[in-house]
Amino acid sequence: MQNRVITISREFGSGGRTIGKKVAEELGIPCYDSELLQKIAEESGFDENYIKDAGEYAPGGFLASAFSHRGAGPNNADYLWEIQYKIITELAEKGPCVIVGRCADYILRDKADCLKVFVHADLSFRAERIVKEYGERDVSPEQRLKDKDKRRAAYYRFYTDMKWGHAQNYDITLNSGTLGIDKCVAIIKQLY
Amino acid sequence: MQNRVITISREFGSGGRTIGKKVAEELGIPCYDSELLQKIAEESGFDENYIKDAGEYAPGGFLASAFSHRGAGPNNADYLWEIQYKIITELAEKGPCVIVGRCADYILRDKADCLKVFVHADLSFRAERIVKEYGERDVSPEQRLKDKDKRRAAYYRFYTDMKWGHAQNYDITLNSGTLGIDKCVAIIKQLY
Repeated sequence: MQNRVITISREFGSGGRTIGKKVAEELGIPCYDSELLQKIAEESGFDENYIKDAGEYAPGGFLASAFSHRGAGPNNADYLWEIQYKIITELAEKGPCVIVGRCADYILRDKADCLKVFVHADLSFRAERIVKEYGERDVSPEQRLKDKDKRRAAYYRFYTDMKWGHAQNYDITLNSGTLGIDKCVAIIKQLY
Repeated sequence: MQNRVITISREFGSGGRTIGKKVAEELGIPCYDSELLQKIAEESGFDENYIKDAGEYAPGGFLASAFSHRGAGPNNADYLWEIQYKIITELAEKGPCVIVGRCADYILRDKADCLKVFVHADLSFRAERIVKEYGERDVSPEQRLKDKDKRRAAYYRFYTDMKWGHAQNYDITLNSGTLGIDKCVAIIKQLY
């Protein structure tokens, strides 16, 4: 029998990770996010910070080519994708869990009984939230959001060939800005 | 004080209209769909069946040009859009309600306290459903779905300049195929 898994894709600053952690906590199941990153790091021998960055970049981007020694063929980002794919599949086989980000929805599409969630919010809600969560930077919060969203979308598109944030890819999409974090948590829990 | 309104956009065959009617029934508020059409018909003096068709076609399409006597400028579809805009605004001012289709989410974007819902499902779920609901036709159910979706998307895009089915346009999007009609009803009710 397959385990019930919740995958959460999210716009940067929408609170998707917070929602995932709360849902997992209330359901008493694990939530994989930074834990997952660490596991990837251990297995690959890569420096964890590099992996954190690389996970946001589609191969062919400037980071990927800076790290790749080949003009074509698989590069480091592709290698990470393979490891990530394997780890996410294993985690879903191990037991019920919440997995935030990392294209888990796509990776588990045929392998798990999976509730696919996408969380988004408008720019002003997210801008306020990232300043509160991560502090001020030289770059404006709006620009940080746009950059991050663009990278996530490109990464998702490259590896899944699907459009990130397209309603039809998910069982449910939620606007955390208009609905509120707590209502999002309640709905996901109810659907589990 | 503004009334609380639920707008439901939906893919053809996804059960969005059924969901809207059930939600309205359980909340004890009106649901506007064919009623709305009729109101449009009465006010415009147009034949009701023509309006039903025209509502699905973006101006510039074959139907619009067939009915329009001008090369450019507003045509009958634009005229209908104006009437529809006015009626939907009035209905939302009159009291809480559910409005299915007709770009009501866009029309009410600044005018009402509005819960914007999009309902979709995969092709096979919808194909089975439309045969059960509307019976067999000469054209395959898959083709009927594709034609209808294409028209709705074009109509939506033309008048709202937004992408139909794009998660970011809605407070919540629901896959009625994987979640089931009843769960969709329960969630929308809960958010109201």
